[in-house]
Amino acid sequence: MALIVQKFGGSSVKDADHVRNVARIITETYRKGHSVVVVLSAQGDTTDDLIAKAQEINPHASKREMDMLLATGEQISISLCAMAIERMGYQAVSLTGWQAGMLTNSAYSNARIKRVNTERIQKELDKKKIVLVAGFQGINKYDDVTTLGRGGSDTSAVALAASLGADLCQIYTDVDGVYTADPRIVKGARKLDEITFDEMLELASLGAQVLHNRSVEMAKRYNVNMEVLSSLSGKPGTKVKEVVKTMEKTHVSGVAKDKNVARLALVGLADQPGIAFKIFSMLAREGINVDIILQSIGRDESKDISFTVARNDAEEAKRVLEENKEAIGFQSVELNDHIAKISIVGAGMANNAGVACKMFEALFSAGINISMISTSEIKVSVLVEERDADRAVQAVHDRFFNEFGNT
Amino acid sequence: MALIVQKFGGSSVKDADHVRNVARIITETYRKGHSVVVVLSAQGDTTDDLIAKAQEINPHASKREMDMLLATGEQISISLCAMAIERMGYQAVSLTGWQAGMLTNSAYSNARIKRVNTERIQKELDKKKIVLVAGFQGINKYDDVTTLGRGGSDTSAVALAASLGADLCQIYTDVDGVYTADPRIVKGARKLDEITFDEMLELASLGAQVLHNRSVEMAKRYNVNMEVLSSLSGKPGTKVKEVVKTMEKTHVSGVAKDKNVARLALVGLADQPGIAFKIFSMLAREGINVDIILQSIGRDESKDISFTVARNDAEEAKRVLEENKEAIGFQSVELNDHIAKISIVGAGMANNAGVACKMFEALFSAGINISMISTSEIKVSVLVEERDADRAVQAVHDRFFNEFGNT
Repeated sequence: MALIVQKFGGSSVKDADHVRNVARIITETYRKGHSVVVVLSAQGDTTDDLIAKAQEINPHASKREMDMLLATGEQISISLCAMAIERMGYQAVSLTGWQAGMLTNSAYSNARIKRVNTERIQKELDKKKIVLVAGFQGINKYDDVTTLGRGGSDTSAVALAASLGADLCQIYTDVDGVYTADPRIVKGARKLDEITFDEMLELASLGAQVLHNRSVEMAKRYNVNMEVLSSLSGKPGTKVKEVVKTMEKTHVSGVAKDKNVARLALVGLADQPGIAFKIFSMLAREGINVDIILQSIGRDESKDISFTVARNDAEEAKRVLEENKEAIGFQSVELNDHIAKISIVGAGMANNAGVACKMFEALFSAGINISMISTSEIKVSVLVEERDADRAVQAVHDRFFNEFGNT
Repeated sequence: MALIVQKFGGSSVKDADHVRNVARIITETYRKGHSVVVVLSAQGDTTDDLIAKAQEINPHASKREMDMLLATGEQISISLCAMAIERMGYQAVSLTGWQAGMLTNSAYSNARIKRVNTERIQKELDKKKIVLVAGFQGINKYDDVTTLGRGGSDTSAVALAASLGADLCQIYTDVDGVYTADPRIVKGARKLDEITFDEMLELASLGAQVLHNRSVEMAKRYNVNMEVLSSLSGKPGTKVKEVVKTMEKTHVSGVAKDKNVARLALVGLADQPGIAFKIFSMLAREGINVDIILQSIGRDESKDISFTVARNDAEEAKRVLEENKEAIGFQSVELNDHIAKISIVGAGMANNAGVACKMFEALFSAGINISMISTSEIKVSVLVEERDADRAVQAVHDRFFNEFGNT
């Protein structure tokens, strides 16, 4: 029989009815003879409510104390879920991050898992108990509570699956799986049966919002079989793994939209070697990640560089550049945060120039302007105006997934 | 400079304003050069809300999981209070029960503190930090979270004060101190400047609801100087210690009312030796504590035994007795839960028969009937009808504390 890690997000445990539903899914798995380790997020809006409480008292609270506060949310979820399972006649035990041996570094609010000491979990599994672990949290070398930052509970689940050598890591959420595009926006979006880690990584980073990249990266590194599925529908979800069956032919897995993006343009840069390095190392020192970079061809001994950053980093990036105006040497810096990134993702794409071409044509047919292009092994991204974004996704999706495309 | 432990109850930290107020009291103490260790309860109704959540999911949840759930309440309080202190420019660190080294036995929901490993707290104090410890909770030998049951946070505070060798343990609450009677009920009730441990023990057990007995017992055992005071008034409170200045003369410290009491009467018992032992050991096995016992003088080869128990134990006690009706041998068992216990407490009382007499006379003058009497070294208790209770307290209080008594 298998060892299965199941993770349920905040919306899946938001109230008593949802907790009972989750307990049903868990016990059904257990009844089949599997060992089950469950990772839970905080209920519904709990984390937001706790943050609001903290904000009211101190808008600049230390991260250590924020972690101490927020860790309570998951602790509430696991104990309630253990009670629901007990009521159904099964033995359960809830474990906080430190009890479950989730050892992290000391970067409060954004800690990395260093090691999972699975001794306690293993002991409880040996006693045939269903083990419930608080997601999103761990403990550092000072015995202080840490939290893992965004996507933390998914990461907790994958780390546990990897450390325990689990056969499967199921990520239960409020959607059926990974779609070819956001089904709330795009007509005709279809659920994928399977997808590779790399494709999932691109889709996640592009705003598909189903799985966080950290967890997929870790799953890829330790080759943990994942499945994304709904806690409500009961239907099979999307399997995320190293190699998928359809791998032999070029395919596009999905179309994604990412609005968390802003473009900065440095105008009138001196056309000197090394200037791009200077700019981007400056931003890197401030912890600002740069995504797409476009450098104009030098003319009149000056050139322009445009690049994109996460939208909430944009003002900070602008400030850093303006403070170093003389050191870098440019005329002006322009910020546009009314843009969106549209991407198609699919393994084997690099070997098929026709894929990018088909995408550009679909956008052209829909009358949508492209301001930047970026390609990689498995994706093609373009920047468009934010107001065109949903139409752009629909047009591209129709072209790749609907035989009666919009042309 | 002194080491001071300060404990604040749930009503003292119920919202952001109250948390800030508590932070002010703490930092004022710290500014005077003292080392400060703070124990906090869960905010306002948090514990009740968590219990309601659990009840909705499983009315018979295991105590282990209840403790896991409830422990979050205090964790929220300490982190929020640490943030408030940080905002005022001081360094604070919050510690959960296990981080603070509160080692308990494994009696979930009602654990006893076995030992406090103060290493971590000492380390933080050495760094000149204000240390905030989650009250009401600890950790057992399985590394599981336990809670201490009623009066838990007071007990946490006294245990810390004893282990750290603190100079003073201040219990902040929503009243000014210990009164000669409940000021909400009794006109002319006065605040006491000081009171002995023994008197406080009697008053607490009699429903004065200011300090829980467990904490006072522990304070007495380790000779921890306590002070009960208001977190709002800023006035001096009541000092609780081994010996008080007024000790030389007989005095009555207070009048208390306890409605959490029910009387059971076993009628028609065979007049055999050992029968009382049989009854009370039977109840003890079920964990039911018996308080006042009154045994009628045997007549016609049968006798009656009346005794009081906590009101919420009454039905259970009745059931146990009825199930053993044949083994014990009695005619009927009668339950009266419309009674109240009125007591006067004061050191040196045993040497002054006039004190009890004065009390009975006050009740007689007020036309109040007494159904049972119990006396000890430092108290005299009587049972009255519940509807007479408030009048009884007022009458007795007037007689002892008001020179123009109600006679």
